[in-house]
Amino acid sequence: MQRYAIGVEYDGSGFRGWQRLSRPGQPDSDTVQGALEAALSSVADAPVSTVCAGRTDAGVHARCQVVHFDSDAVRDPRAWTLGTTTRLPPSVSVLWCRPVDQDFSARFSAVARRYRYRILNRQVRPALERQWLAWVWSPLDAAAMHRAAQALVGEHDFGAFRSAECEATHARRELQRISVVREGDLVTIDVQANAFLHHMVRNIVGSLLEVGRGTRPDSWIAEVLAGRDRTRAGPTAPAGGLVFLGPCYPRRWPLPEEVLVDDADARPGA
Amino acid sequence: MQRYAIGVEYDGSGFRGWQRLSRPGQPDSDTVQGALEAALSSVADAPVSTVCAGRTDAGVHARCQVVHFDSDAVRDPRAWTLGTTTRLPPSVSVLWCRPVDQDFSARFSAVARRYRYRILNRQVRPALERQWLAWVWSPLDAAAMHRAAQALVGEHDFGAFRSAECEATHARRELQRISVVREGDLVTIDVQANAFLHHMVRNIVGSLLEVGRGTRPDSWIAEVLAGRDRTRAGPTAPAGGLVFLGPCYPRRWPLPEEVLVDDADARPGA
Repeated sequence: MQRYAIGVEYDGSGFRGWQRLSRPGQPDSDTVQGALEAALSSVADAPVSTVCAGRTDAGVHARCQVVHFDSDAVRDPRAWTLGTTTRLPPSVSVLWCRPVDQDFSARFSAVARRYRYRILNRQVRPALERQWLAWVWSPLDAAAMHRAAQALVGEHDFGAFRSAECEATHARRELQRISVVREGDLVTIDVQANAFLHHMVRNIVGSLLEVGRGTRPDSWIAEVLAGRDRTRAGPTAPAGGLVFLGPCYPRRWPLPEEVLVDDADARPGA
Repeated sequence: MQRYAIGVEYDGSGFRGWQRLSRPGQPDSDTVQGALEAALSSVADAPVSTVCAGRTDAGVHARCQVVHFDSDAVRDPRAWTLGTTTRLPPSVSVLWCRPVDQDFSARFSAVARRYRYRILNRQVRPALERQWLAWVWSPLDAAAMHRAAQALVGEHDFGAFRSAECEATHARRELQRISVVREGDLVTIDVQANAFLHHMVRNIVGSLLEVGRGTRPDSWIAEVLAGRDRTRAGPTAPAGGLVFLGPCYPRRWPLPEEVLVDDADARPGA
């Protein structure tokens, strides 16, 4: 068996999230994993099952999801990339493929994951690019959101920002960096952590929005974090504004530059 | 009668272009003009007809189309903006509204129009943002495209780049600036002229792509322009990559900064 790593871009609007809802081998075109495994299995002419770096929710997009799978089928990277893309709906593309050792895991080898949340902050709803933007009409103080967010950097129990359905065994995560930047009407929140809990980014964004609107002071984010109580945080921000930019792996793996990271960049405050 | 100018943003994917296909007052939700006039008429509680700065084709988007209309209905700019947007499909938004004198024309007062064409230049088709991008898989030399394009700057007969259906009385236009810039996989072509012929941007882009692929030398664009023969130019580039950024007006009009221009910026090579 050869193990392969692939990079996958997708528009999550039409999917019920990453995770396959049916059993392996059963058709499931409602999920990204289901659609991808059907296409890979067609190229391999045998069933293929996949493991991803970060399971995304319904409506969440990915710039470069990383996935690994094993196959006995002898295909060159070009066939795995272009052949699979041809068999996928227009909302999913395979960007690249690399053969990797069996000890590589798209999930467990990743040392960081990066998400981006984009908010159009103006009186009128977005028409252009509306699938990739959240919309907030009340004026946001992005500088206050950025200051407040810095309380999240470091290793903490993020229980206040996990969903009730989160299945992780514990809530300790290392948040490496977070920034909130305004350019004109667009407010962009970039966040990087070793790993994320279910709904963690959208719950952090929902809480930062309370600070941005002036409903809560900057110091409130630190209080919510320390309280570890989901019911005290802000509401979950909508899925459409969220893009999984992708995971990061140590440089020893033979992967494209865009998913590699120096050790120093996967530490808090780097 | 009061005249109003409004800014309109739209996703052209689901429309048969700007121009109303039915007679005024008849329902026509297939065109941007038809949808907009229905919404404005509902706010005014009386028929409203509109004139735009630049009629866009089927599938072409607009960042800030400018439109004028006359109405006896006494409504404040907020009602024309938010009330109209509420009555529009999600793919169209009214950005702002300003009362203007009767001698303002969205079409004839404009001294420049700006278009942007974006091409994703990589082996694999786009999944994310695919509604706003054209896709070219063969490597493009953006620097050669930029050099070649400079031959178009100035006042010329652009007959070589007009469509067979173009209804303009003559083909002389003043192209004020054009640039081709690569950032990673994305090639962006920005072009500004006093006015454009039908399909002029998409025909220029189609011809620049021949230079970008290396099929034609840099000097070929100047030859095509001089020949004034549409059959010698490259094929029309697809509509989806094209966004009408908007028109520009002299500063004496009471309009938002984003659609105003200094005289010097509406001259070739400025």
